[in-house]
Amino acid sequence: MRPMKVREIGEFELIERMAQVYREKGAGAREFAAAPSRLTVGIGDDAAVWEDVAGRYSIATTDAMVEGVHFTKTTTNWYDLGWKAMASNVSDIAGMGGIPLYALAVLAATGDQEVEAVLDLCRGMADVAGLFGAAVVGGDTVSSPLTMVTITLIGQTGASLRADGSLPLLSRYSARAGDLIAVTGRLGSSAGGLELLLHGKRPLSDRFAPLLEAHRRPMPRVREGQLLVEAGVSCGMDLSDGLVGDLTRICRAARVAAVVDVDDLPLDPLLCEAVGERATDLALSGGEDYELLCTGPAEILERARRLLDANGSTLTLVGRLVGVDQAQAPITLVDAAGDSYLPRRSGWEHFTAGGDAAKT
Amino acid sequence: MRPMKVREIGEFELIERMAQVYREKGAGAREFAAAPSRLTVGIGDDAAVWEDVAGRYSIATTDAMVEGVHFTKTTTNWYDLGWKAMASNVSDIAGMGGIPLYALAVLAATGDQEVEAVLDLCRGMADVAGLFGAAVVGGDTVSSPLTMVTITLIGQTGASLRADGSLPLLSRYSARAGDLIAVTGRLGSSAGGLELLLHGKRPLSDRFAPLLEAHRRPMPRVREGQLLVEAGVSCGMDLSDGLVGDLTRICRAARVAAVVDVDDLPLDPLLCEAVGERATDLALSGGEDYELLCTGPAEILERARRLLDANGSTLTLVGRLVGVDQAQAPITLVDAAGDSYLPRRSGWEHFTAGGDAAKT
Repeated sequence: MRPMKVREIGEFELIERMAQVYREKGAGAREFAAAPSRLTVGIGDDAAVWEDVAGRYSIATTDAMVEGVHFTKTTTNWYDLGWKAMASNVSDIAGMGGIPLYALAVLAATGDQEVEAVLDLCRGMADVAGLFGAAVVGGDTVSSPLTMVTITLIGQTGASLRADGSLPLLSRYSARAGDLIAVTGRLGSSAGGLELLLHGKRPLSDRFAPLLEAHRRPMPRVREGQLLVEAGVSCGMDLSDGLVGDLTRICRAARVAAVVDVDDLPLDPLLCEAVGERATDLALSGGEDYELLCTGPAEILERARRLLDANGSTLTLVGRLVGVDQAQAPITLVDAAGDSYLPRRSGWEHFTAGGDAAKT
Repeated sequence: MRPMKVREIGEFELIERMAQVYREKGAGAREFAAAPSRLTVGIGDDAAVWEDVAGRYSIATTDAMVEGVHFTKTTTNWYDLGWKAMASNVSDIAGMGGIPLYALAVLAATGDQEVEAVLDLCRGMADVAGLFGAAVVGGDTVSSPLTMVTITLIGQTGASLRADGSLPLLSRYSARAGDLIAVTGRLGSSAGGLELLLHGKRPLSDRFAPLLEAHRRPMPRVREGQLLVEAGVSCGMDLSDGLVGDLTRICRAARVAAVVDVDDLPLDPLLCEAVGERATDLALSGGEDYELLCTGPAEILERARRLLDANGSTLTLVGRLVGVDQAQAPITLVDAAGDSYLPRRSGWEHFTAGGDAAKT
């Protein structure tokens, strides 16, 4: 039998098989005290979580950005690359409802790289980390024919166990059929900014600066994650791959299906002006928004909405979760008239051209 | 002025400049409680250390292996690659005197990679982690034209503060002139194994299997690190780049110089048989031994030696530290007759062909 290749099974299936290996091996003999028994959330969520001391949890996440895959020198300068690489990790911690603390950064680059460019990368990483009280405390530099930035970020939960004994964090596994779906901020702006950078008529109008900013220097929603936890929300994650792709992950994890009201998606009027009717598609699957996606009972999401509103943020209802038996697909898109909506683009999955993450 | 390139300043200088950026930025405004104030050891040591709860310290390290730079498919299969990538991180934790706990692994590979190869890589990582009670709890997979494995490993100190109030860990900054220098195990075996793999006469004799094993599946010295701490040793690090290169790091960090007695280096008789008189050079700068290097007062190293001996390990004295004013170079190599010894190979530094890490 011909050996299977990674691109044939796709990222999700690969991660599942890798997790299986780790689980099997994790059960093996250990020379030292088996601290991983305190592991609370393992592979599959935005981050790993373990209990540090009674009632306090550490959260760790890692993300890599590869030249030519996640960024190009055309649309990203070094400072912004550092910012985005760190922001995507901070966002993963925010997506767990945690607070980022310590980052380790690995830079792979050729020796021909300009020193000042590397230092700009460091500045970008440090600046966005610093905004949230985190710092780069270590790392590694390696020579490589290809530029790649890998960051690991370690944080912790901000609160103790909840009154009902559940963990003070957001997980993609705690969704329930009947939950409403909500997102913070606005969607699609980063993708809109990228489109302008790639295809926008030159010179780009200053009016679109907020879209470019959303793409170049996304702002992770750490405080919003804390507020969601405070409001009692328990299902959430960050939006890195687009609403459809990320919502599919929640649906898989919790074995539910989702109905998204596309006319309720929070869009920046600037985005609509810049890309016209494609705004909805960018909001659905543009990716790199680094907003938060959450689900929960109506009254809890209403409490969360008020809490975010009081803190200068927004939370918008965009749909509901249903039982898998009540749905034809993991994600159904409907417009305000109740008609089904067909998107043109779908979420991004590594290794495969069009993975099952994006089936709608 | 022409911009400086990374290869012109070398890895050490680059890291120093990056650390400077992080330090400056770390002092900036913070939205959240400034937990990094609890940071104990930052950039420059084997790992970052911070106080978790009173008297207990977390240790985090990260290491990347790049195809064509750190390994080639010719001499390393996927299982062994996973083993080595994880072992080098476990060794960094061991070099701090810590216990490894949770690992995050990032795999960059092309979609053309065979799934079974990737799973073998996972098995190698999980097996060596499991030997020391650690587990892979998360990670990331990204598509990349080039194979690269980046692991971050988080551990903790095994003991509380010492009686004198010092941290229960090994640091490269705590060396003092007058200290003796010691290493665990034997040196040069991994480099000897690599030489056999690359240039050995085929078929390779089974008698050399231990050398190949030392190269393919190095065994980090976690227990030895614990025992060194228990014995009262406070200066130590792991040997990844060769004795000369790594000892230079201790000398720089503590502003001392070292005299190494090359005839005292612990060599495997098999290594001498395999590579003849080059054994000494491989022990000095072959790299990837993943033994521990430490310095300390004679009586403390003697206590450590007895403790390791009682636990089936060895500790060998290989030299002494002197004041920088008493030495012509950071590292002086002398033979049993007291004559100076000139090595043929030097330690490996990224980005530069022959960095100052290797000046002897």
